[in-house]
Amino acid sequence: MTIETALAGLSALLGDRLSRSKSDLAAHGRSEAHFAPAPPDAVAYPETTQEVASIAAICNENACPLIAYGAGTALEGHTSAIQGGVSLDFRHMDRVIRVSPGDMLAVVGPGLTREALNRELRATGLFFPVDPGANASLGGMAATRASGTTAVRYGTMRDNVLALEVVLADGRIVRTGTDARKSAAGYDLTALMLGSEGTLGIITELTLKLQGQPEAITAGTCAFDSIAAAVGAVTAVIQAGVPMARIEFLDEASIAAVNAHAGTDLPETPHLFVEFHGSDGAVAEDAATFAEIAADFGAQGIQTATRTEDRNALWAARHHAYWACLGLKPGATALITDICVPISRLAQAVEDTRADIEAASIPGPILGHVGDGNFHAILLVDPDSPADLAEARRLSARMATRALDLGGTVTGEHGIGIGKLDYMAKQHGEGWAVMAAIKQALDPNGILNPGKMVRVNR
Amino acid sequence: MTIETALAGLSALLGDRLSRSKSDLAAHGRSEAHFAPAPPDAVAYPETTQEVASIAAICNENACPLIAYGAGTALEGHTSAIQGGVSLDFRHMDRVIRVSPGDMLAVVGPGLTREALNRELRATGLFFPVDPGANASLGGMAATRASGTTAVRYGTMRDNVLALEVVLADGRIVRTGTDARKSAAGYDLTALMLGSEGTLGIITELTLKLQGQPEAITAGTCAFDSIAAAVGAVTAVIQAGVPMARIEFLDEASIAAVNAHAGTDLPETPHLFVEFHGSDGAVAEDAATFAEIAADFGAQGIQTATRTEDRNALWAARHHAYWACLGLKPGATALITDICVPISRLAQAVEDTRADIEAASIPGPILGHVGDGNFHAILLVDPDSPADLAEARRLSARMATRALDLGGTVTGEHGIGIGKLDYMAKQHGEGWAVMAAIKQALDPNGILNPGKMVRVNR
Repeated sequence: MTIETALAGLSALLGDRLSRSKSDLAAHGRSEAHFAPAPPDAVAYPETTQEVASIAAICNENACPLIAYGAGTALEGHTSAIQGGVSLDFRHMDRVIRVSPGDMLAVVGPGLTREALNRELRATGLFFPVDPGANASLGGMAATRASGTTAVRYGTMRDNVLALEVVLADGRIVRTGTDARKSAAGYDLTALMLGSEGTLGIITELTLKLQGQPEAITAGTCAFDSIAAAVGAVTAVIQAGVPMARIEFLDEASIAAVNAHAGTDLPETPHLFVEFHGSDGAVAEDAATFAEIAADFGAQGIQTATRTEDRNALWAARHHAYWACLGLKPGATALITDICVPISRLAQAVEDTRADIEAASIPGPILGHVGDGNFHAILLVDPDSPADLAEARRLSARMATRALDLGGTVTGEHGIGIGKLDYMAKQHGEGWAVMAAIKQALDPNGILNPGKMVRVNR
Repeated sequence: MTIETALAGLSALLGDRLSRSKSDLAAHGRSEAHFAPAPPDAVAYPETTQEVASIAAICNENACPLIAYGAGTALEGHTSAIQGGVSLDFRHMDRVIRVSPGDMLAVVGPGLTREALNRELRATGLFFPVDPGANASLGGMAATRASGTTAVRYGTMRDNVLALEVVLADGRIVRTGTDARKSAAGYDLTALMLGSEGTLGIITELTLKLQGQPEAITAGTCAFDSIAAAVGAVTAVIQAGVPMARIEFLDEASIAAVNAHAGTDLPETPHLFVEFHGSDGAVAEDAATFAEIAADFGAQGIQTATRTEDRNALWAARHHAYWACLGLKPGATALITDICVPISRLAQAVEDTRADIEAASIPGPILGHVGDGNFHAILLVDPDSPADLAEARRLSARMATRALDLGGTVTGEHGIGIGKLDYMAKQHGEGWAVMAAIKQALDPNGILNPGKMVRVNR
């Protein structure tokens, strides 16, 4: 009952789809710069659910850790093999299995990326709306309950996954949910698996809700004098019931970075980037209402973009903000924070974070999905400077604690992994023990992504 | 370790808020006519979460069943004390604890009804949208993952509960979720508790998402030649992305009942009742698009109502359809079925059910929330006729099996209770064993609503 015994069994099962090459191990043990590399002992490349089930059974019998791996875009060390074992790379299970336009759903493999799915859907008039920025795998997005810029309108992965096929630790295959839009039949195992980061089961198939391509899209930007004014405008627009498809905040440091990177000349003050989806009439009306409310909060220079190329340019500026921010400190890597607070506390959370960073020794532009109360600081560190990294960690810890003090959560969308594990007890109290009890019930040998999300006493 | 020992302890704790009066026991053991009465041994009336925790601890030590009880509107025998024990009546925990307009949320006790909440919210410009028809308690609605006419727009309880306070079987108090709109921190215990029908924990407080009162509301009705035409129109409208707040189907038998009950003169063919929420302009545009698409499917006699009194009259006809249907067979009670199928299979499911009922010995109008693929037959039985009841059960079983055959679920919104327990294995397969494992982990003594939802081998 050792990892080596497991690997012998897996090798017999998978042949050359079990890799022990150094480069493969290193690639799968790599993570954000601020986590130490933690390579697995082997990388498995399954092609079918049945293979995943067999792999799990072998690992379970031999107490060999098994870590699901999608596109490698996780930010909190989710895929690090901190106890060794097998990295389960889903690159071969990346098909669109079925699209049902009448039910507005698609069934896909976990290795499919969201961009690939949307490319395949283009001719159907449908799209999958969750957009975390990175071209993540849909299995990974489900496992971390990902969201992004469009969650304010379309929700997070929690709201956009109808059903899952999941392989349990012992190799049993479970289907959660159906093609029906709702159900009151039993515990919501779909929701339990979403966000469980591969610690309760391994997602081998997803049934995703699709949306109709909106008839019209209008995007816009506007500048505010202060963070409080920008956030106040967001709150007022939400309360007025204006349906926004995206509503993004960029602070002055982010705007400076965008200007430097994209050659734009936006005024270097807090901005909102917004987008409306709907019929021509509805979109025009929503944009006008937004402009009116924003003006009440002192918004200046409201620009709108309805043509596709103008909208794309606008969102390219937002989506490239990460790269733009990296450009502020040549050679830097980023520690990206991720907190989410009640909307009523958002202005305070952003302002206090801004003040913290201004008093710190490293730069950190702030941007985020303010319709959800979720924002990030892009803390820029010289990867060779332990002092920089320590400072980034200090700022990140203060943000997490601030989120809890304001009634929020230490992660809005990036997840726990190993990066946020130390906050689980504080955020959940007795609820964390409940999570451990569930983990123990479903994975008694503790093989599924061990060391993440929960701590189980053995 | 007996129920009597538990009751002695509870009596000492609660004084005269532990009732053993015959009328109290009978009232709490009553259920829909087709389930035998199953009174508890006592009824407890807690006033605080701490009391609920103490009650749970006493029951857990003495293996005494504990059954949460809200407004008594459950349709599948959820509150029946089939193994005796204590009914936990939340009528005293019915306060609006806090409203945060800035966060668009309300914190409430589980005994509060949805109508009482909406009355208290009236001055805020906000409302709670989930509307199952009955004036259910919000704790009960959460425990059964209820929905209703507005789910097509606002979602079910799954989508409208941000956070819960839950008392576990052993008396520990857990808070799930926060006031933030989303979180990626840990297993989704909120979703796990929603729909668990009091078998995993007892909900003692709910944090609910609120919506802004729409600026404008327009409702309408229209008649179709066939079920297929009506359902086809619904599918097309959804795919066109027209945001409907409600979209209800009534078959010819339901319309005949409504005409007889309300004195209306609607043509006795399949109808859609629809409602739009939004700005003046958006609502007008949505209603026009709907009318255009409906006309493509042969809709006749499209009537719209924008004035409050006209809309209320229209929805009164829909909401009173249950009573109208009862009037079709004097002295009858109803067995109400509840299946949900993928939208693409809805026309077939309704037509096959219609044919089944027409060949049966009892009447059964069909109506439902067709935007979700969810519909009900109101099967009318003479309560003194075993033959009627057997016929209703036969039809209900055929509907449940049909739902599974069409890729749907045996219950869209009424839940499992005891009425649908026999379908759990067929619907969930190995997933039902996972549910049992979770039940066993969180309620090892099996005191929480025993005999419902799961079967645990001891």
